[in-house]
Amino acid sequence: MSRENLVSNLIQWRRDLHKFPETGFHEMRTASIVAATLEKLGFSLQLGKKVMDENYCMGKPSDAETMEHFEWAKENDISSKYLECFKEGYTGIVATWDTGRKGPTIAFRFDMDALDIHENEDENHFPQKEGFRSRILNKMHACGHDAHIAIGLGLAMMITQNQQKMNGTIKLIFQPAEEGVRGAKSMVKANVVKDVDYFIAIHIGTGVPHRHFVASNNGFFATSKLDITFHGEASHAGAKPEKGRNALLAAATAALNIYAISRHSGGMTRVNVGEMLAGSGRNIIPDRALLKVETRGETSKINEYVKQQVEAIVEGAAKMYQNEYEIKLVGEAISCTGSTELAEILHTCAKEHHFIEMSYLQSKDSAGSEDATYFMKEVQRNGGQATYCIIGTELAAGHHNDKFDINEESLLPAVEILYNSILKLNELNSNVN
Amino acid sequence: MSRENLVSNLIQWRRDLHKFPETGFHEMRTASIVAATLEKLGFSLQLGKKVMDENYCMGKPSDAETMEHFEWAKENDISSKYLECFKEGYTGIVATWDTGRKGPTIAFRFDMDALDIHENEDENHFPQKEGFRSRILNKMHACGHDAHIAIGLGLAMMITQNQQKMNGTIKLIFQPAEEGVRGAKSMVKANVVKDVDYFIAIHIGTGVPHRHFVASNNGFFATSKLDITFHGEASHAGAKPEKGRNALLAAATAALNIYAISRHSGGMTRVNVGEMLAGSGRNIIPDRALLKVETRGETSKINEYVKQQVEAIVEGAAKMYQNEYEIKLVGEAISCTGSTELAEILHTCAKEHHFIEMSYLQSKDSAGSEDATYFMKEVQRNGGQATYCIIGTELAAGHHNDKFDINEESLLPAVEILYNSILKLNELNSNVN
Amino acid sequence: MSRENLVSNLIQWRRDLHKFPETGFHEMRTASIVAATLEKLGFSLQLGKKVMDENYCMGKPSDAETMEHFEWAKENDISSKYLECFKEGYTGIVATWDTGRKGPTIAFRFDMDALDIHENEDENHFPQKEGFRSRILNKMHACGHDAHIAIGLGLAMMITQNQQKMNGTIKLIFQPAEEGVRGAKSMVKANVVKDVDYFIAIHIGTGVPHRHFVASNNGFFATSKLDITFHGEASHAGAKPEKGRNALLAAATAALNIYAISRHSGGMTRVNVGEMLAGSGRNIIPDRALLKVETRGETSKINEYVKQQVEAIVEGAAKMYQNEYEIKLVGEAISCTGSTELAEILHTCAKEHHFIEMSYLQSKDSAGSEDATYFMKEVQRNGGQATYCIIGTELAAGHHNDKFDINEESLLPAVEILYNSILKLNELNSNVN
Amino acid sequence: MSRENLVSNLIQWRRDLHKFPETGFHEMRTASIVAATLEKLGFSLQLGKKVMDENYCMGKPSDAETMEHFEWAKENDISSKYLECFKEGYTGIVATWDTGRKGPTIAFRFDMDALDIHENEDENHFPQKEGFRSRILNKMHACGHDAHIAIGLGLAMMITQNQQKMNGTIKLIFQPAEEGVRGAKSMVKANVVKDVDYFIAIHIGTGVPHRHFVASNNGFFATSKLDITFHGEASHAGAKPEKGRNALLAAATAALNIYAISRHSGGMTRVNVGEMLAGSGRNIIPDRALLKVETRGETSKINEYVKQQVEAIVEGAAKMYQNEYEIKLVGEAISCTGSTELAEILHTCAKEHHFIEMSYLQSKDSAGSEDATYFMKEVQRNGGQATYCIIGTELAAGHHNDKFDINEESLLPAVEILYNSILKLNELNSNVN
Repeated sequence: MSRENLVSNLIQWRRDLHKFPETGFHEMRTASIVAATLEKLGFSLQLGKKVMDENYCMGKPSDAETMEHFEWAKENDISSKYLECFKEGYTGIVATWDTGRKGPTIAFRFDMDALDIHENEDENHFPQKEGFRSRILNKMHACGHDAHIAIGLGLAMMITQNQQKMNGTIKLIFQPAEEGVRGAKSMVKANVVKDVDYFIAIHIGTGVPHRHFVASNNGFFATSKLDITFHGEASHAGAKPEKGRNALLAAATAALNIYAISRHSGGMTRVNVGEMLAGSGRNIIPDRALLKVETRGETSKINEYVKQQVEAIVEGAAKMYQNEYEIKLVGEAISCTGSTELAEILHTCAKEHHFIEMSYLQSKDSAGSEDATYFMKEVQRNGGQATYCIIGTELAAGHHNDKFDINEESLLPAVEILYNSILKLNELNSNVN
Repeated sequence: MSRENLVSNLIQWRRDLHKFPETGFHEMRTASIVAATLEKLGFSLQLGKKVMDENYCMGKPSDAETMEHFEWAKENDISSKYLECFKEGYTGIVATWDTGRKGPTIAFRFDMDALDIHENEDENHFPQKEGFRSRILNKMHACGHDAHIAIGLGLAMMITQNQQKMNGTIKLIFQPAEEGVRGAKSMVKANVVKDVDYFIAIHIGTGVPHRHFVASNNGFFATSKLDITFHGEASHAGAKPEKGRNALLAAATAALNIYAISRHSGGMTRVNVGEMLAGSGRNIIPDRALLKVETRGETSKINEYVKQQVEAIVEGAAKMYQNEYEIKLVGEAISCTGSTELAEILHTCAKEHHFIEMSYLQSKDSAGSEDATYFMKEVQRNGGQATYCIIGTELAAGHHNDKFDINEESLLPAVEILYNSILKLNELNSNVN
Repeated sequence: MSRENLVSNLIQWRRDLHKFPETGFHEMRTASIVAATLEKLGFSLQLGKKVMDENYCMGKPSDAETMEHFEWAKENDISSKYLECFKEGYTGIVATWDTGRKGPTIAFRFDMDALDIHENEDENHFPQKEGFRSRILNKMHACGHDAHIAIGLGLAMMITQNQQKMNGTIKLIFQPAEEGVRGAKSMVKANVVKDVDYFIAIHIGTGVPHRHFVASNNGFFATSKLDITFHGEASHAGAKPEKGRNALLAAATAALNIYAISRHSGGMTRVNVGEMLAGSGRNIIPDRALLKVETRGETSKINEYVKQQVEAIVEGAAKMYQNEYEIKLVGEAISCTGSTELAEILHTCAKEHHFIEMSYLQSKDSAGSEDATYFMKEVQRNGGQATYCIIGTELAAGHHNDKFDINEESLLPAVEILYNSILKLNELNSNVN
Repeated sequence: MSRENLVSNLIQWRRDLHKFPETGFHEMRTASIVAATLEKLGFSLQLGKKVMDENYCMGKPSDAETMEHFEWAKENDISSKYLECFKEGYTGIVATWDTGRKGPTIAFRFDMDALDIHENEDENHFPQKEGFRSRILNKMHACGHDAHIAIGLGLAMMITQNQQKMNGTIKLIFQPAEEGVRGAKSMVKANVVKDVDYFIAIHIGTGVPHRHFVASNNGFFATSKLDITFHGEASHAGAKPEKGRNALLAAATAALNIYAISRHSGGMTRVNVGEMLAGSGRNIIPDRALLKVETRGETSKINEYVKQQVEAIVEGAAKMYQNEYEIKLVGEAISCTGSTELAEILHTCAKEHHFIEMSYLQSKDSAGSEDATYFMKEVQRNGGQATYCIIGTELAAGHHNDKFDINEESLLPAVEILYNSILKLNELNSNVN
């Protein structure tokens, strides 16, 4: 297959996926297409609960919502063979290519989920102009995960076409629910990277300029996403105010004090109460309140410190107003530093690629979070190496913006750098052994 | 017309209205039926903006919502002649009966609006059993205003049937939007009680037992209903937290301090932040927050004190976080004490009625609010007399409960006591002059 | 003894006591003089722990402070015989006069403590002009308790002079620490009113005009005085902020939420955080905080409700910041309503007295507190009658003001009204039996 | 003079100063001794307001306190000639040595103030054992500034003894009130470093181990120290709570929200409300509150951001409760990075010194603050070079601890390294020119 054909495939995949964005744990049509494509290429597949420990899925939508989306997917799927496998919302896929020859196990992670954003309808917005704007109200691939999936499929295609040049085993991991850092942990807990020697996650954009490449991004903050509910007791605010147990007051007090959590001398922290919903009527003492909170720390330990303070504050605030409360962990990621040796290999591959004008061995993008770190930490804990690389691109607007768009020129170089890293890692390991 | 026939009419009106509850400023079908019925009886009618000053309507739904309800009403109206008059949501009616004979002007107020409550579907719930349960999702006559309208129409009928026995002028005021104390002020400002010598508002239930009557309820608190909005600035909570101007924090701080407003040595107060909605996403510094607040005071002056504190607190909280803010008055009522002389007349009428076992000259039901007080105060200011009476009944469940229901036996006695008060007032005035 | 002589005694006592004010549980010189005077008159005395249960003294100063005051008293006492009895700060006295004749037991309460106020030094301030201004820095009889003691001693003198006219038993109770409502409960718990049929407490002033009298003041709020301490952990605020457990934040959160305690539909409440002291240095995370709080309620039950909310709030706030905390009850009073029959007797005595121009059977002074209510409730519980009466006077300035002063003309009438009430009660009981 | 004699002088100076600690702007005895010593050595002196702009003194004690301390100093001074010059609390000294030969102007800064700490009385505490423990109640040199002064005087002695070896001009700056970062700015504003080419500040200890040296410490946070006062209105909390304007509530709200100030993506911040004092009595609505606040930022710009948030919060909190407020800047320091070239010279001098086992070119001690940064920034702004060096020592306990003590062995090496840096800088400049 020529490079031109591959480019054409990459664009076609990406645009189709862009048209039908699906959010975390609902990537049914998406996963179904991914699975069908990889099967056709000859990969051996593991799906759903086989690659996801259901006890570690965080912030998974309710069964009712999942069932409802399944109905939609049935009507919109183009390759229904696999759809049934993802019915319950366990949409992860691990596709394995065993060369049959001795060699390292190399894994790549691609995330698949979209966002709850309504895509811009401006005529000059490229997806609109080219007719592949989201067909779905209030959903959009505004972070480039459509591109990631295309890169993953492109890499699969290059692997099959060049299978004689490779040793060892290659695993392609397609992960649900990266947004809100909800999906990775369940795949790690299902042991999908237990046997992995090298792990590479890739992201497009994130501010890295077009034709630039970062071999190891180490700035991810550990983070926890918490849904906090207070349950008090309602009462008529005029007639019997003393009979109420005020959940709004408990939540407001908690919110204020959560922001007041002490800074940490060990590194940066963040904390946010992004949403608060409380009460049921103007003249009723509020009996219910919900806070959507996130904590972040430069390290997992610092994030853990902030999270523990949140827990103490919520317990105390509930006690104040004799409320019951619930803290639900709906997302979490840790911090992790890329392995230098692996990063250097990717750095070399990038520098050698004609499209890349500038490659950086390491960078430290601040204050964002990623649950690829779970895979990385696990691989490193088992003695392997892991890194998180970024292929720069031209962005029409920032990530999570309704005018977000990438430059599709970046897709093929991404595929080729990843592919070349396999060759380099094979070579390194044949030398070593 | 026999008493039996009147009872049958009362029940029929009440049940029909119960089936089609309409909330404040949307009483289009309701008002249309009222107007048609009164016209047929020979009353002269004033409608809509003629009896409502649009500058003093509080908490009126948006034009879009009103238009949407009008479409619904067109499909559900049984007497479309008047519907068009109420299209814009000015649904007040003043029906006048001038006897042509010298005498006092006596006004009665009946409120017409329902609540945003989903009526209970239990088989034993009387309206369900009898087939007149609300046809409308999430709307219900759960405070007895359907009964009030029926009483008003019944009184109109008795007046026309006994017109020879009466002197002076009788005005029947049908008021929109009593719930949330939003509608009365606009009718007062449109001068509908400017010429009134005696004013009587009536309510059913409110805890007064079956076959009991209260001639003057004086416990209403003055109240203000405020929608408070904070406008800050959003920013990514991880990447650029310092660029945000946090509206949630401003609102939480305001809420806490609003509850902390000092008690008043002059009398009881109440304050409630019934609802808070803030933020747009977990990882975004919240740029918007809404508080639904109400203040109450044993007197209008005390309520004014509390309201001023709320205003200062909101201004300060906004300043803290460099937010813009808006305080919108969406409802207000004053306190008022009934006129003793008029109360005594009603008290006598009640005691003389065979159905009533116990009548009270005065009572002081605490901590509720009513905008009938605006009419009362205005009439008293002009030298007239005013009172607020209550006809007891058997309640299936408390007001604003989804199982609320009255005993329909109370309807006719209410009509007759009001009718008799007209005769007594005529007599009194003929003696005087 | 002539009325002139009695007046001269009253003034002499009052002025001497005024010169040497002593605050709660430190009334050593005061009690010593009272005891010596009453002994000389022939009363039988019970002192100190015999009339005060030490487990129920609230807000008693530390032993060290008490010892220090004792040293002062030794140097300033004029009748050192009794001083030793009050060394430990149990300064209560019950003086009993048993007529030996059958009849009711009638008790009178007089409070003895001064305030931490520095008396005004203005030349026109009457005590200054007349040379009896407080000799003690920052202490002053600014509430009239010096007058109360004088009235008590005057009453004792009239009793001895008129012993043949009386039946039954008379008890004169001299109570420490009424300010801060700290001393009465310990006397009640020591059973000093267990055998009492009639109990009368008297106060001077309180806004009642000169030559007026109130036979039963029923407006006292129940109240609790709480010292609340938070114990956290200090840490350098720049170097290790996360190691601190912030007591100032816990206390500030508690303070805010204490003010936000819900109003009560059953009656008026008050709550105040009168003082807050927290922290030990600008750059140290505060490890200590003290709140001085008081709650009040129109009834004891309502006050109890507010107090329980305070406790829940403090527990919650401490939990938030992993603080230890302590809530110390340093004063408390209940609400109580005077007995009508007894009030009527006093009312009659007052009306009959030539000095009194106006007497009121009942009044409802709002929102102050008094621990005489403990005596009253106990007497009523045992089937007796109790009331709280007020002798009006001309005030130079309000109570607790540094220019406070009374008109000494009111002293003798107070004594005589109380004395006459004994005669009336004797008469009533002889009729009855 | 032999090294032994110099050591003996250093120890004698240090111990004498240790015995008579004086806090910021009260270093009268201290400065008087310093001036007398330097004069004797032949330095030309500038004192008091000549080297301090009174408009930029921050957190200076009141005139009354200063006068009182002057009285103390008069009784405790051993060289009263200069005492009068420091009477008003402007205790800064600049001592200049002009070699008469062309060459750079090199300045050294030594801070002189002690702390409000009561020195430990344990027998094993070295100053106690050796008889030079603080003679002054609650004051102590617990940060080593006594050592700094001794080093400065020692350096002066070495300069005079080796005057033939040096070129250019040397300025010794003795600064008041480094604690609380209050004194440096006023000296900078008085232009004392306007003509300086090289500036070196030195500190002892700070965790740097014995026999170690840091040539450039760059971790100082910018900081602002703020005294914030709220003025409300008192009222009786039971009788007229609504008449109060609650300063405690304003301050508690401000404190809570100050801690809640958003983190900054540009770098670390700190914020602390170290003390709060509010109210005047349990039953009085608090009319006064004081907050002692400090902000810090990794850069001056970030600190400025935090400070501005504090200002907005305080304004808002005051508005909430209709309080007046005042924000007083009582200390401030900026952030600054040492000049590499100058640091390298000190680094070389340290490495060459036999006593030093380890020298570091740069370190980044986190989250402390120093107002030497004002001198540094000013010198750099004028094209000069500046650095902040640290001579390690053995600490008996941490800085600001009541058992703090240094190892006096470190004194002489500090003097010699500084002296050698003069020679090196002379050499460098003679080469250059």
